[in-house]
Amino acid sequence: MAKHAVVFAPGSIGNVGPGFDVLGLCVGGIGDTVAIELHGGADVIDEVKGWDAAQIPREVGRNSAAIAARAFLDAHGEGHARFRMVIDKGLRLSAGMGGSAASSVAGALAAARAVDRDASPIALMTAAMAGEAVVSGTHIDNIAASLLGGLTIVRTIQPIDVIKVALSGEWWIALVTPEDVRIETRAARALLPETSARADWVQQMANTAALVHALSTGNRDLVRRALDDRFAEPRRASLIPGFAEVKQAALANGALGCSISGSGPTVFALAGAFGAAQRSATAMQAAFGGLASTVHVGRVSDEGARELP
Amino acid sequence: MAKHAVVFAPGSIGNVGPGFDVLGLCVGGIGDTVAIELHGGADVIDEVKGWDAAQIPREVGRNSAAIAARAFLDAHGEGHARFRMVIDKGLRLSAGMGGSAASSVAGALAAARAVDRDASPIALMTAAMAGEAVVSGTHIDNIAASLLGGLTIVRTIQPIDVIKVALSGEWWIALVTPEDVRIETRAARALLPETSARADWVQQMANTAALVHALSTGNRDLVRRALDDRFAEPRRASLIPGFAEVKQAALANGALGCSISGSGPTVFALAGAFGAAQRSATAMQAAFGGLASTVHVGRVSDEGARELP
Repeated sequence: MAKHAVVFAPGSIGNVGPGFDVLGLCVGGIGDTVAIELHGGADVIDEVKGWDAAQIPREVGRNSAAIAARAFLDAHGEGHARFRMVIDKGLRLSAGMGGSAASSVAGALAAARAVDRDASPIALMTAAMAGEAVVSGTHIDNIAASLLGGLTIVRTIQPIDVIKVALSGEWWIALVTPEDVRIETRAARALLPETSARADWVQQMANTAALVHALSTGNRDLVRRALDDRFAEPRRASLIPGFAEVKQAALANGALGCSISGSGPTVFALAGAFGAAQRSATAMQAAFGGLASTVHVGRVSDEGARELP
Repeated sequence: MAKHAVVFAPGSIGNVGPGFDVLGLCVGGIGDTVAIELHGGADVIDEVKGWDAAQIPREVGRNSAAIAARAFLDAHGEGHARFRMVIDKGLRLSAGMGGSAASSVAGALAAARAVDRDASPIALMTAAMAGEAVVSGTHIDNIAASLLGGLTIVRTIQPIDVIKVALSGEWWIALVTPEDVRIETRAARALLPETSARADWVQQMANTAALVHALSTGNRDLVRRALDDRFAEPRRASLIPGFAEVKQAALANGALGCSISGSGPTVFALAGAFGAAQRSATAMQAAFGGLASTVHVGRVSDEGARELP
């Protein structure tokens, strides 16, 4: 019987352009890792390592991974279990790469594995939502993509109804995160209007439906046209110095589309091949000018969160 | 060299539940037929037959099929050509079955064939839009489905960007049209709000993306959940006496979903097999109570408008 578990949960792109609060895309090769060991003491976070570790709360009641783990245990008759936890952040804080979602997913899945539960995706997402809520409110586009991998559609949150879309073709992502730019999800949401004109939301809906279809059928030309966010991107672009130039650099270097990852400041580019993603990443970094940035190039990952050996 | 052509264009369901102004679904076995013969006189409509024939304008300047034919000829260097036309309406007027779209598509394609043009879908849709505009304004969800067949996504109208979605599995449709209920598309649109709250349109977008995915992958359970229109249906239901009972009857008899076809008054049910569609149709008719209705049961047609031998 397991008493400990180590889980890796990948980063993800929320919204994926037009799919505001609906689409999520799982990014390969980067994520958060949470290790849990059951013990006789109280819940405790032993260590937080990696990116922005100093800014991650050590209190179990304020830490996404710990809250998600506790939520899972309490909901599954394991309320008596106590854990010690180590968190290794591969994803930066408030970067728009789904870091709080990944930590929450990893915390929930590590807790499930530590108590030997083969938990359903809905049970894990429910627990992870409790973890992410402390950071960025109730939404699960990043949670769904990090847990399930691939492209996900969040149809409803209450009850949770999430669809994983099987993709065709090869899809690569370039993520560029400017240093010293932090955007809180809540603040980024406050920039968005509470209501939208009919023509505007119908356009957004059309692009989202077309984008899902394009990714599931391997239609690159359609990705080029449909990866077009007219809702959040124009309103949030000013939060990211040089965004217009960065986007232009990506599109001029082989990317099929480029937009803000989640609520930013990370900018993502989607490409149909490694070379185009790599060139886009380099050009995007250059376009940020004097602003230093970190970069990640990876495949869209069909595999989501998983236990490590 | 052809001097005459006969074209059949099928009926279609606009919106398809949540996909307001975006989705269209082609219905097999029912449609409008337009015959064109080039001649030395002026453009003339010789005859209009079929459903509601008496109410179809005979003036070429006010008739959808004739306007579309003329628009095609003028746009393709055949402005000198003159036609005589016979229209056979299989689709009722103002019923919400895409009748004006079908007539327009048939008119445009018949004109193209009569002058031996192998016209592009965009050229045909452009001409058909001119025809439909006189009846129901500028939208092409029905035109796209009638021309191309299957499920269509209208991504943009200017420029026209329409995607045909390949479907998996078997899909059947029941259409029930109450007699003596006429709804003008323009009047039905006036019932709809000009703006929508963010949570509402995001929900509509999620259902639309999920529905496209469900139909393209043959996922009946997901159709059941995603064929859920919270925008137009609740606001237009009162135009159709007994709508709630009719919908309930469809769902209780094996339909996966049921909503208003286009702007109504036709109600459509979508099913995964002929039997369920047939039973739904019978139950829906019964649920209209004293209100007489006509019914059509057919497959989703992968084939759109075509020239008849």
